[in-house]
Amino acid sequence: MFRSHTCGELRLQHTGSTVTLSGWVQSVRKFGAITFVDLRDRYGITQLYFNEELAPQLDADPLGREFVLQATGTVTERTNKNPNIPTGDIELTITAFTILNRSAVPPFTIQDDTDGGDDLRMKYRYLDLRRNAVKKNIELRYAVNRATRDYLHGQGFMDIETPFLIKSTPEGARDFVVPSRMNPGQFYALPQSPQTFKQLLMVSGYDRYYQIVKCFRDEDLRADRQPEFTQIDCEMAFVEQEDILNMFEGLVKYIFKEVKGIDYREVVERTTWEEAMWTYGNDKPDIRFGMKLANLKSVFTRNGTIEATGELVNGADFKVFDEAETVLAIAVPGAAEYTRKQTDELTEWVKRPQIGMKGLVFIKCNADGTYKSSVDKFYPEERLKAIADAAGAKAGDLVLILAGAEERTRKAISELRLELGERLGMRKKDEFKLLWVLDFPLFEYDEEGNRWVARHHPFTAPKPDHIATMIANEPSIANPEKYLEHPYAAIKANAYDMVLNGNEIGGGSIRIFQRQLQEKMFAALGMSAEEAKHKFGFLLGAFEYGAPPHGGIAFGFDRLCALLGGSESIRDFIAFPKNNSGRDVMLDAPSSIDDKQFTELQIKLDLRNNE
Amino acid sequence: MFRSHTCGELRLQHTGSTVTLSGWVQSVRKFGAITFVDLRDRYGITQLYFNEELAPQLDADPLGREFVLQATGTVTERTNKNPNIPTGDIELTITAFTILNRSAVPPFTIQDDTDGGDDLRMKYRYLDLRRNAVKKNIELRYAVNRATRDYLHGQGFMDIETPFLIKSTPEGARDFVVPSRMNPGQFYALPQSPQTFKQLLMVSGYDRYYQIVKCFRDEDLRADRQPEFTQIDCEMAFVEQEDILNMFEGLVKYIFKEVKGIDYREVVERTTWEEAMWTYGNDKPDIRFGMKLANLKSVFTRNGTIEATGELVNGADFKVFDEAETVLAIAVPGAAEYTRKQTDELTEWVKRPQIGMKGLVFIKCNADGTYKSSVDKFYPEERLKAIADAAGAKAGDLVLILAGAEERTRKAISELRLELGERLGMRKKDEFKLLWVLDFPLFEYDEEGNRWVARHHPFTAPKPDHIATMIANEPSIANPEKYLEHPYAAIKANAYDMVLNGNEIGGGSIRIFQRQLQEKMFAALGMSAEEAKHKFGFLLGAFEYGAPPHGGIAFGFDRLCALLGGSESIRDFIAFPKNNSGRDVMLDAPSSIDDKQFTELQIKLDLRNNE
Repeated sequence: MFRSHTCGELRLQHTGSTVTLSGWVQSVRKFGAITFVDLRDRYGITQLYFNEELAPQLDADPLGREFVLQATGTVTERTNKNPNIPTGDIELTITAFTILNRSAVPPFTIQDDTDGGDDLRMKYRYLDLRRNAVKKNIELRYAVNRATRDYLHGQGFMDIETPFLIKSTPEGARDFVVPSRMNPGQFYALPQSPQTFKQLLMVSGYDRYYQIVKCFRDEDLRADRQPEFTQIDCEMAFVEQEDILNMFEGLVKYIFKEVKGIDYREVVERTTWEEAMWTYGNDKPDIRFGMKLANLKSVFTRNGTIEATGELVNGADFKVFDEAETVLAIAVPGAAEYTRKQTDELTEWVKRPQIGMKGLVFIKCNADGTYKSSVDKFYPEERLKAIADAAGAKAGDLVLILAGAEERTRKAISELRLELGERLGMRKKDEFKLLWVLDFPLFEYDEEGNRWVARHHPFTAPKPDHIATMIANEPSIANPEKYLEHPYAAIKANAYDMVLNGNEIGGGSIRIFQRQLQEKMFAALGMSAEEAKHKFGFLLGAFEYGAPPHGGIAFGFDRLCALLGGSESIRDFIAFPKNNSGRDVMLDAPSSIDDKQFTELQIKLDLRNNE
Repeated sequence: MFRSHTCGELRLQHTGSTVTLSGWVQSVRKFGAITFVDLRDRYGITQLYFNEELAPQLDADPLGREFVLQATGTVTERTNKNPNIPTGDIELTITAFTILNRSAVPPFTIQDDTDGGDDLRMKYRYLDLRRNAVKKNIELRYAVNRATRDYLHGQGFMDIETPFLIKSTPEGARDFVVPSRMNPGQFYALPQSPQTFKQLLMVSGYDRYYQIVKCFRDEDLRADRQPEFTQIDCEMAFVEQEDILNMFEGLVKYIFKEVKGIDYREVVERTTWEEAMWTYGNDKPDIRFGMKLANLKSVFTRNGTIEATGELVNGADFKVFDEAETVLAIAVPGAAEYTRKQTDELTEWVKRPQIGMKGLVFIKCNADGTYKSSVDKFYPEERLKAIADAAGAKAGDLVLILAGAEERTRKAISELRLELGERLGMRKKDEFKLLWVLDFPLFEYDEEGNRWVARHHPFTAPKPDHIATMIANEPSIANPEKYLEHPYAAIKANAYDMVLNGNEIGGGSIRIFQRQLQEKMFAALGMSAEEAKHKFGFLLGAFEYGAPPHGGIAFGFDRLCALLGGSESIRDFIAFPKNNSGRDVMLDAPSSIDDKQFTELQIKLDLRNNE
């Protein structure tokens, strides 16, 4: 028996007991002939007291940081209690001990604020995982996992495993493929999600399915993307969108309660995709704060109509606004007093390549009711006031205006809003605000191919009212310039995203469940009947034998955990993550393989020269 | 809202309520103008009653098998109750209904005893999964999953996800590999198990880890092997073998209780590997019945000594026994009355190529105390009696004797024992008997390479008493004929298998946790220091920084579920299995990939001509 208790367990009530602990040496403090050791395990830290009698043994074979130690002793009340740790009332007066294993000096300190850089920590991930800061994340991840399973189990969901070696059907993202030795020349693909399988399970009658499952996408990695990632993947049959929204806001509330102790009692707010784009310039708005967008001029349509036609800003000889597709404004509360230096800095901020705007117009709404603007010479004060009013500004606020091409400007003002929300402390770490974004467009226009691509995926159902539009119209786009006028541009889907504090944490849709509509969808995406049959014949086949109405959702598990842990970075919530080149630097993977493996798989390299 | 209740939910107490059900049409029975429909979903079957008023609607658009139907009506007490189904007391008197989706005639009947052959069922797996017989298996699998998680959670284990894209380190089995587009010329491997990761987690201090996780092995598939399979993977730190045995027999007992309602109160029996081989000729014996082996002659050693030297059978001029390496016997209870035809049939049975023996010797222990044997002319009756006594035969038993080369003969008698156990009804479907097999050899001799290979894997620790033997001796084998005399042949490991009814359901070991011993182990397996560092440098590195004593176990989840479901075949306990060529016939995977994918991955095919 290596231990009778853990290092986080002993309290005053144990005083007098003889116990054995095993763990790692966190620190050694010598005072003449007596020594104190902090012994650490997963559960906590306990102070060990070695008296004079043990000094010779300690001297002969000294303890070092991260040594693995087994120690037996008597639980003793401390004279000098430590209120910062749960075991701080006691210490263990050691009677015997054994060094179970030694440790070289670790390449960085095993402490909350380690001296290890990112690369070193990743190479020695097994040591990094010992740090309390990382351990708390991994524990939180398990707590989210457990809460998810408990809730879904209670709701009658079944965890059903779907295969990992499947068929390559590259749609949006690239597949990772796996050569098959037993079927030379053929490849499996790793799943980008279990989408078609969960739909088949609905056809099979397993009406509430879930999995916490690894998915794979071979994409160029942006910061904080992983080639393998984890989803909470769910599907339900005989449901409408409302059933799904209720079920899964229930899940997230349950997780809040179980993992964070947060009783999220408010109704989860809902908005449409169009409303979100008009109001926040963004389909995953952070609604912890207002600072909503004023659309002064736009080509963006709401229900097919361009609402912001630009009367307020056009015709004042200010070319920037006259020529812009879009003019958008926000009112920054209480920022009218910003200095020239501050507004200049904001201008520089929006001119950075990541934002890419040419400049920034501001209107100061002074406390005395006057207006001061960077475009004073074009706009008389009453017009400045009208613009400021349109932006919802009050006395003391600063109105910031961006103008330019629609998509870029909308993105830029959304970023600017988030940045100012951050600077003004309106994005509170301990506040959690959920939002459903509904009614996404079914299609997205692909400029390069002058064609429609699925905004969500090809299995998403159009809203019932929009099915007729889809069936009645051909997908071809005669005039690429006017693609927005194509009937497909206005088709909305029964698709929904769940947004937490400005991050998409989950998304899903009601699915197509009729073969004919699914075939029409594939055709709308430019897939020939043969190609559709080759790639998704099994699903089309399944829809012929009594497919029920169904829909589902998938949550990004890594991201959800990171957000609950108060971090924007998913990497420290994954036990063994990969770096931005998709490498595991600890394993040194990927790596070369043996000639024998090439021969058996009947493949060879076909390397291009350095490109 | 598609339904207010499920098809398994309604009882007499609901009589008079108006409810809505959705499900599949199991059967349609017309009696003149009235129609009965059995409506099925995951939860059960409810009878629907359509009266004359609905006949026109039904006639205009007739229902068919597997149509998806939504029906609203009043719960009514049945005059003609059906005691065979839980909803049999009521029926639903329909007031309105909608066909949600139609179905073509399924290629086989959706019933317990379907008319669909194996190939058809696999191709239309989504329909096969509707059958109650398969659904029960998938539900049982989920129940085992849930029970496993509940037990391990209660014991403080954490589910920690390990990566799927790792490094290829082919040891025993072949890896599946995944070309890396971002690292041209390099490959990931899919894990054969999370072995090294769970050990790293122990080094990191997460002292109780588990996962229910997919693993991958690119092996030629025998019947009932899958290229991807699921493990319950567990590891603990600061434990000895005894701790692990207790923890995991607890797990299996918990699963028995939760899933099967079986209160397994007996002590789980334990045997050593040597004892199992001597007693049952097999390291995963079915101990639901006796019929133990008598070792009449053997080269097999127990604690390094050959115990069965052959006095009973040698020297009677019966060449077969004289020249055989091994002579083994079992006593079949109550089979002395077997006819000539029956013993001939048994002889043919052992001569089949799968068993591969040249013949079978029998001794009938007649009720009157006389003996009759197929080798009467070599052995006088008192010698036959002595042999029968050695085999533990009583009057009325039939002694069966096989002779030949050690390994084949032992395997053959073990198969014969199981076959007779089956025929005599001693392997009861509803009886579950667990057994721990302990003290496996650390090494296995590889004849082809004249070298040692790891019996379990290279991370298994030798028994503490045997470490010195391993360190003191070099692995090289001077005389291949006498490999059994090499000191390594006698080294036993702290390795253990859990056996259920003659099937290995789990196996594990106490691990090496010292760098030096691990290096010695790699060297013993013929791995150079460079190779060890290249493949397992991260683990050797981890062992330098305070690795704790640790050990673990992995259960074959598919097999465990199948056995609990009373089946020897794992395939019907996997939602989407592959066939014996590793193909998913439903998806038609693996399959060819696009030229673009080859170009991006910088690989090409290198197909050999038909070999």
